[in-house]
Amino acid sequence: MSQAALQGLFVPNLVPLDEQGRINEPELRRYVDWLIERGVHGLYPNGSTGEFVRFTPEERRRIVEIVADQVRGRVPILAGAAEANVRETLRACEHYAGLGVRAVAIVAPFYYRLSPEAVYAYFKQIADHAPVDVTLYNIPQFASPIDVSTVRRLAEECPRIIGIKDSSGDLPHMMRMIQQVRPIRPEFSFLTGWEAALVPMLLAGCDGGTNATTGIIPEVMRRMYDLARAGQFHQAMQLQYKVLKLFDAMVYTADFPEGFRVALSLRGFRTGRGRQPLSAQQQRQLEQLRQTLAQLLQEEGFLQEPLPEAPSAGSEDVDRIVQEVMARLQQRGMG
Amino acid sequence: MSQAALQGLFVPNLVPLDEQGRINEPELRRYVDWLIERGVHGLYPNGSTGEFVRFTPEERRRIVEIVADQVRGRVPILAGAAEANVRETLRACEHYAGLGVRAVAIVAPFYYRLSPEAVYAYFKQIADHAPVDVTLYNIPQFASPIDVSTVRRLAEECPRIIGIKDSSGDLPHMMRMIQQVRPIRPEFSFLTGWEAALVPMLLAGCDGGTNATTGIIPEVMRRMYDLARAGQFHQAMQLQYKVLKLFDAMVYTADFPEGFRVALSLRGFRTGRGRQPLSAQQQRQLEQLRQTLAQLLQEEGFLQEPLPEAPSAGSEDVDRIVQEVMARLQQRGMG
Amino acid sequence: MSQAALQGLFVPNLVPLDEQGRINEPELRRYVDWLIERGVHGLYPNGSTGEFVRFTPEERRRIVEIVADQVRGRVPILAGAAEANVRETLRACEHYAGLGVRAVAIVAPFYYRLSPEAVYAYFKQIADHAPVDVTLYNIPQFASPIDVSTVRRLAEECPRIIGIKDSSGDLPHMMRMIQQVRPIRPEFSFLTGWEAALVPMLLAGCDGGTNATTGIIPEVMRRMYDLARAGQFHQAMQLQYKVLKLFDAMVYTADFPEGFRVALSLRGFRTGRGRQPLSAQQQRQLEQLRQTLAQLLQEEGFLQEPLPEAPSAGSEDVDRIVQEVMARLQQRGMG
Amino acid sequence: MSQAALQGLFVPNLVPLDEQGRINEPELRRYVDWLIERGVHGLYPNGSTGEFVRFTPEERRRIVEIVADQVRGRVPILAGAAEANVRETLRACEHYAGLGVRAVAIVAPFYYRLSPEAVYAYFKQIADHAPVDVTLYNIPQFASPIDVSTVRRLAEECPRIIGIKDSSGDLPHMMRMIQQVRPIRPEFSFLTGWEAALVPMLLAGCDGGTNATTGIIPEVMRRMYDLARAGQFHQAMQLQYKVLKLFDAMVYTADFPEGFRVALSLRGFRTGRGRQPLSAQQQRQLEQLRQTLAQLLQEEGFLQEPLPEAPSAGSEDVDRIVQEVMARLQQRGMG
Repeated sequence: MSQAALQGLFVPNLVPLDEQGRINEPELRRYVDWLIERGVHGLYPNGSTGEFVRFTPEERRRIVEIVADQVRGRVPILAGAAEANVRETLRACEHYAGLGVRAVAIVAPFYYRLSPEAVYAYFKQIADHAPVDVTLYNIPQFASPIDVSTVRRLAEECPRIIGIKDSSGDLPHMMRMIQQVRPIRPEFSFLTGWEAALVPMLLAGCDGGTNATTGIIPEVMRRMYDLARAGQFHQAMQLQYKVLKLFDAMVYTADFPEGFRVALSLRGFRTGRGRQPLSAQQQRQLEQLRQTLAQLLQEEGFLQEPLPEAPSAGSEDVDRIVQEVMARLQQRGMG
Repeated sequence: MSQAALQGLFVPNLVPLDEQGRINEPELRRYVDWLIERGVHGLYPNGSTGEFVRFTPEERRRIVEIVADQVRGRVPILAGAAEANVRETLRACEHYAGLGVRAVAIVAPFYYRLSPEAVYAYFKQIADHAPVDVTLYNIPQFASPIDVSTVRRLAEECPRIIGIKDSSGDLPHMMRMIQQVRPIRPEFSFLTGWEAALVPMLLAGCDGGTNATTGIIPEVMRRMYDLARAGQFHQAMQLQYKVLKLFDAMVYTADFPEGFRVALSLRGFRTGRGRQPLSAQQQRQLEQLRQTLAQLLQEEGFLQEPLPEAPSAGSEDVDRIVQEVMARLQQRGMG
Repeated sequence: MSQAALQGLFVPNLVPLDEQGRINEPELRRYVDWLIERGVHGLYPNGSTGEFVRFTPEERRRIVEIVADQVRGRVPILAGAAEANVRETLRACEHYAGLGVRAVAIVAPFYYRLSPEAVYAYFKQIADHAPVDVTLYNIPQFASPIDVSTVRRLAEECPRIIGIKDSSGDLPHMMRMIQQVRPIRPEFSFLTGWEAALVPMLLAGCDGGTNATTGIIPEVMRRMYDLARAGQFHQAMQLQYKVLKLFDAMVYTADFPEGFRVALSLRGFRTGRGRQPLSAQQQRQLEQLRQTLAQLLQEEGFLQEPLPEAPSAGSEDVDRIVQEVMARLQQRGMG
Repeated sequence: MSQAALQGLFVPNLVPLDEQGRINEPELRRYVDWLIERGVHGLYPNGSTGEFVRFTPEERRRIVEIVADQVRGRVPILAGAAEANVRETLRACEHYAGLGVRAVAIVAPFYYRLSPEAVYAYFKQIADHAPVDVTLYNIPQFASPIDVSTVRRLAEECPRIIGIKDSSGDLPHMMRMIQQVRPIRPEFSFLTGWEAALVPMLLAGCDGGTNATTGIIPEVMRRMYDLARAGQFHQAMQLQYKVLKLFDAMVYTADFPEGFRVALSLRGFRTGRGRQPLSAQQQRQLEQLRQTLAQLLQEEGFLQEPLPEAPSAGSEDVDRIVQEVMARLQQRGMG
């Protein structure tokens, strides 16, 4: 607990798969190196982007083992450790502690939508027995919400809990947490999982982010982070607008995290196909998205040379595609 | 596939645990017998009431093994078979097929909220490879919704899919499914998971139900079912009102399925404590609920003699408690 | 208050408009006669179907005056009386009382979403001063919800409040209200505003309905109502399925209540165009809907002869169109 | 249209009422002066805070007349002009144009939840005929949402539409609008109605805000606005945290806008009682809120001397009260 507070950009890394759908270990190792070389502050295996629920308990352990072995202490690791119940979760915590991770991240109970009191009881029991620091993970879109009062209560009672990753994307919500917790736990970390608002979140006092997009354009995310940290908010916001455009295309045009898988393949990694089956229609849409993303990435200068896959679509085409994306996004009530 | 259509009341059974939190096999066997003796039409291990997500993959297999061994063919078994991904799910299907279950039930993908197209692709791949009949499981409160068009599409393309369990509780939704599917698949089964509306659902043409409450008061649920089947709708509705009162108390005053665990202990089973930790406040609330439920069960004549736990609370007290339940229910926007 | 309880089918009538967008009085009078001749039990001007919010306070009064004058006591009138605030609402109540309406219907406060306590205070003040019987109107899709506890509280304290119209479509919710209120107010009326579930609602003890569809096919709705009242639930449900098909097409393919306006024009009334502007795309969709509805109405034998507008679309076309409707409905998360 | 773009802080002013519930004209005039003296950039009568739906059409006109007469050109006026339908709304627009308002604000259609296409058609028809500049008003909590594509479409087609007030509080949503509209309409104004995020919104490029809180602490809101405009984001955020605390107390502990009415009375205005009745319980809660707000305002030094109403509550008491507020807020799922 004398360790430094969690800070900076942690990558919730995707897991490349091979032709048989198994973990592609060499490609995962190569990806870890690539990310570290591009300046990310930490790794975050078994996050939502890492599709932790689609792996078996043994595979989840294996993923952290590979990442930890490849990282070799260069950056801290935040390991997703949620398992079927508290006992299994604590076993995973022990295993990850043995691998030297900086902390574990535990998502609130999912499937059932539990009350604040139940969410409290769950984290309390974990925190009382975990052999490693714990970060809460709030993602109300997918799991039981962890509300502000519960965060404060846990921060007060559990020194083992050292931070929260919040993916709600709600800025005043983040501010309420900071306002409630910082006076009693100054070193408590607040990480946002919603890159669409990363710069404003940093302005509001967040310590960093755990964002799928950092796994796709680590250089840009790092530059944006550094600008915000240096108080260069106007320049940071200019990047934020570009990140938003890319993020929207990745997150709203395909079932999560397929858009990120396509984008990662455009960065040169053999991601393999995901474990969630895709219909023929979905595959066609992903092919379209691939071209949109190639164009978007190229415009920002992230890709060194024109991709063979990308047709000679002019900037207007991209505009049109992006507008279609927006339209579909509105239909889903998210615009 | 020449087998009879699924029909009647399948019990999504709770799993009794021992002091160490392990499956209490003797009590589970005793519970299975008790249910069959009281007239349930089938068993449904690894449902939401059975807290399938809180067990390990090995435990889920063990639960079905125990149930199948104890049932010994007296009634059909519908086995919850959802695992981390399609491959693991298919392995579970094979195992359960070997145990002689009538069909498996697969909940739509959860945690992520997937699009209709993704939900289709998921079930299509399972249905194309499953060695056993499959029922869809729609519970939009907890998992990705399976919409009417997707049900129809899957019913059209997949003979392996023989029915759907729907827990939305939305009567017109059920009617839309029946209207779309029955003309093309007359033997397709529709089971409702929302006992608050079981009688109207049966009137609308449902084939039966998979209801947590059937695990608590199997005799009453069976009587209600028989009355509705016999066209005695007015008498059936009188029971439906009583069932609603009990159901509301069990489902809305505690995090699911704690209220059902308490009720089952009142029927004489050592349920043990659940795997989800409970705060001190939650434990006090469950103790109150225990008294409310004891009173409710007694008033209906389900319990042979006054329970020692039940204080001499008069009917007015129960009314007051039920009203408090209602008030809390309203606060949650569910009233 | 010695008057009979509200019972049966009240029509929330649309208001025909002329070329200038003004109330088309002769057509409204003709419509009122047509409805009464076809067996509706009452009229309900200034409901949601009647677009009360799109008329001025003076027009709302005029609508009730016309209806009351044309009805001439043949059936009871339930007059929508919600105005900008309690004082204005009470003035409208006085006016409608003078016209001899059986009761007024007051929707819960809308625009702002008020707490149960505020909803209570609002209706209490109205009920304490109204010179006419009042029915609550719960339509949580559009207005602040009136929860079960609040209905009970108002029923207990306010003899002036004699019933509730509930458009939530939630059957257990209706049962909870009946369960809470009937023991203390046996004559209190429960009317459902959700025709997709009218028969099950009647089975559950509802006294009737206030359904837009009754304004389109009064004969069928009346027959369905009579069958349910006579305990002929299976036959009633057969009609309920047909009504559902028509209702879905009217309610989910166009902004409410445009689908009903189109349908009413198919019954031979000059409805005029609504006051809410329509885009070119909306107008094309309404033209398509017109053909679907013409076909649907014809199949049921409601229209005496083929409509000139209806192209020679075969039954397959209708099936296809209905499926498109369903698909669009799913996209909106309503399937 | 050669006029300057809307910019800065517009006050959606409350309307003081007298003992009889009528508009308190002298107090409204005094309030207008007080606001202008404290640096607000504009007035915004007939907004949601101004409870426009609780006044009659005649009263809404009278409110704008009083404000316009008292302002006498010192600051621009944005007048809420939504009436029962397009024709009535256009009549109000003409009246307000005659009073010299800078622009009108039109909320999207409410009560019914309309589709994007219908929302487009509505604003298009208004914009094509309005004799005055129009700002869109998006408040999806209360009215039909205006999505990003619709804003862009209207901005493209309608020069009369010169801006949007958005009260969704969703920062990426605001950024998407700015990203879509600014390239084609550089002078289009973006005002946020969610003061909990005003500083980040300004950082993102918003032109200003229309915030109820500006009507309570105009000096602070102006200072915060000026700091953000000057690029002093860290100092601006410090104020933003204080504003959030006050805002949360005003908005989440009472039915809107009662908390603001109480706060305004603490600033020395005779607000009178609102038109929405209050239960005894609500009145007690408002009395408590009064004390909390008095303490909060005093701590910030906004009130010159201790209020007689405020008991000698220490800072700890305030902390406790604020925490209770937070807890209630969580219960409503808003924390």
